[in-house]
Amino acid sequence: MNMFSDHPHRRYNPLSGEWVLVSPHRAKRPWQGQVEDAVVPDMLAHDPECYLCAGNTRINGEKNPDYESTFVFDNDFAALTEDAPKQRFEDGLLLAEGESGICRVICFSPRHDLTLARMPVADIAKVVDTWVAQYEELGIHPHISHVQIFENRGAMMGCSNPHPHGQIWASRSLPNEAAKETENQRAYYEKHGTPLLMAYLQQELALGERILFENDGFVVLVPYWAVWPFETMVLPKRHIRSMEEMTEKEREDLAEALSKITIRYDNLFKTSFPYSMGFHQRPTDGHDHDEWVMHAHFLPPLLRSATVKKFMVGFELLGSPQRDLTAEQAADRLRDLPETHYLAG
Amino acid sequence: MNMFSDHPHRRYNPLSGEWVLVSPHRAKRPWQGQVEDAVVPDMLAHDPECYLCAGNTRINGEKNPDYESTFVFDNDFAALTEDAPKQRFEDGLLLAEGESGICRVICFSPRHDLTLARMPVADIAKVVDTWVAQYEELGIHPHISHVQIFENRGAMMGCSNPHPHGQIWASRSLPNEAAKETENQRAYYEKHGTPLLMAYLQQELALGERILFENDGFVVLVPYWAVWPFETMVLPKRHIRSMEEMTEKEREDLAEALSKITIRYDNLFKTSFPYSMGFHQRPTDGHDHDEWVMHAHFLPPLLRSATVKKFMVGFELLGSPQRDLTAEQAADRLRDLPETHYLAG
Ligand SMILES: O=P(O)(O)O[C@H]1O[C@H](CO)[C@@H](O)[C@H](O)[C@H]1O
Ligand SMILES: O=P(O)(O)O[C@H]1O[C@H](CO)[C@@H](O)[C@H](O)[C@H]1O
Repeated sequence: MNMFSDHPHRRYNPLSGEWVLVSPHRAKRPWQGQVEDAVVPDMLAHDPECYLCAGNTRINGEKNPDYESTFVFDNDFAALTEDAPKQRFEDGLLLAEGESGICRVICFSPRHDLTLARMPVADIAKVVDTWVAQYEELGIHPHISHVQIFENRGAMMGCSNPHPHGQIWASRSLPNEAAKETENQRAYYEKHGTPLLMAYLQQELALGERILFENDGFVVLVPYWAVWPFETMVLPKRHIRSMEEMTEKEREDLAEALSKITIRYDNLFKTSFPYSMGFHQRPTDGHDHDEWVMHAHFLPPLLRSATVKKFMVGFELLGSPQRDLTAEQAADRLRDLPETHYLAG
Repeated sequence: MNMFSDHPHRRYNPLSGEWVLVSPHRAKRPWQGQVEDAVVPDMLAHDPECYLCAGNTRINGEKNPDYESTFVFDNDFAALTEDAPKQRFEDGLLLAEGESGICRVICFSPRHDLTLARMPVADIAKVVDTWVAQYEELGIHPHISHVQIFENRGAMMGCSNPHPHGQIWASRSLPNEAAKETENQRAYYEKHGTPLLMAYLQQELALGERILFENDGFVVLVPYWAVWPFETMVLPKRHIRSMEEMTEKEREDLAEALSKITIRYDNLFKTSFPYSMGFHQRPTDGHDHDEWVMHAHFLPPLLRSATVKKFMVGFELLGSPQRDLTAEQAADRLRDLPETHYLAG
């Protein structure tokens, strides 16, 4: 292992089946390129201009209720619709299929000025409950095989409204990443009789070097094959295939794990840390999928400071993703941070 | 086909084996999120502060020659090095391999203030000649199996110096995207006896609706499965596996094709259009690879204007890439633009 902390190498991601190039010697190159705005506007607890705040009117004329914890509605600009044609078109190398689905928005809190990192664990637990209810409600539709729950946090991640919220895109077919993870978990399960991610977690817990946090139900770690500079994964300690299999206690444990990692993220560069995060869990296609272990991925772009991100561009898009610091270095940095939010108290 | 111009559908990319979600009905949603700087600083023809300009000194103390067309040097902050250890590390689900390689920078012109879009075709032809020479020189190394030639253009694409330049990352192993394209082209070739991309080009030429430009040697088109809003592909008209197989005339034809597409790009939003571009061609692993057809991909992020880009975030990273306008709509927009650069004359 040690030779790899200073020298270029590649690591294999057994979930996606892809490689990441790691160039640890490169971390010190100077940065003369684009820097992002470190926007920290003073925010109101309730913003009369925000279409996600309680009681306000959305673009389609609907009025939000005076919600007190979470609030779910159908996306006013949905990428997927329920009435899409189901036809398949195939002509030589051209192949297309109608794709139907349901897109929803979930407000995490009526407070316009909060984020997961600054919400009490008990309130994050209500978000977890809402995700579980949505996963079940959407997954039950016969034409929905996959429910993608995610959050784009921060303007840098294409989020157009700072009000804390996430999205769900539920679709008839399995998206690329879900299809890869299903295939790789299935092959491992058939060969070893254990779920891939349960075996992986045991290994990481024994080693300890990439673990950031654990409670009774969940573990947060930097995966060995992390792509984004401070990428992390949230894994359950027992074999949970999808959200609704969590006990009450495990939902609270998950909420606590999400709180801990998002606080560390904000503390890293003393900023409201941008990321995309989301859950992968078993498809809702009616099969058992015993190979599946639900988990969350956090994919944050910042590299060196609140304003300098990692660009996934030329080589990354045309070749393989590349990173400068190792997963172990990232884990050390994140582990050393205080557990209390830098704006608290 | 027609039902797909208004309704959500997914299209298959036979080169990568992945799907893209297309949501044509969504193109009109308002944008309230992050806008990029439309930086158009007045640039000097020679900038004394630029480490790529002729005669200037780079960070490592080396002095650039007084080059007159192109200039190649080893990247001062290389992500790959020649002396990387070759060991393999495997322990349960942790798998890593030493990765060696060579990273180079290619200045396209001594003129600090130009881009491919504003260079004469004859000068772009010199860049093509340099790429060919580099592909051959690097590919010949027994420990180099793949030569990735690319350009990150513009600050939005992580480019830290506006001086026109590209990069080469040559590596011992095949990057993810090259491995997928090799596998899919090989399977098609074994089944049909024709290279996949030659068959695809015939289909596109017969249909015409996604073609932007053609000359004797090359075609520029919007691929049926384009991911980025104005993504294009440059394909040779005959079966050329890698660059060095081009005739003199074909090199000029390629230079002309690159000039035409980059001019259209700049004209689209009257800005110096950002993109990552690069060539895929047969691996330099000593095998024949008759399945391979060399081609270039242009992957530009802008969506609506010089300052509003497409964000590849939550659903894209965790599920599948998603686009709003169809490939046909993008082709129409690009085809309608003038062939002369908006700043010319
Ligand atoms: O090598 P450069 O130009 O410093 O860096 C740029 O291109 C590289 C290759 O695509 C990326 O890894 C970097 O994130 C990007 O900033
Ligand atoms: O749906 P939103 O928040 O308007 O849009 C954001 O998230 C989507 C899903 O990841 C992306 O497709 C968009 O590019 C991004 O801007």
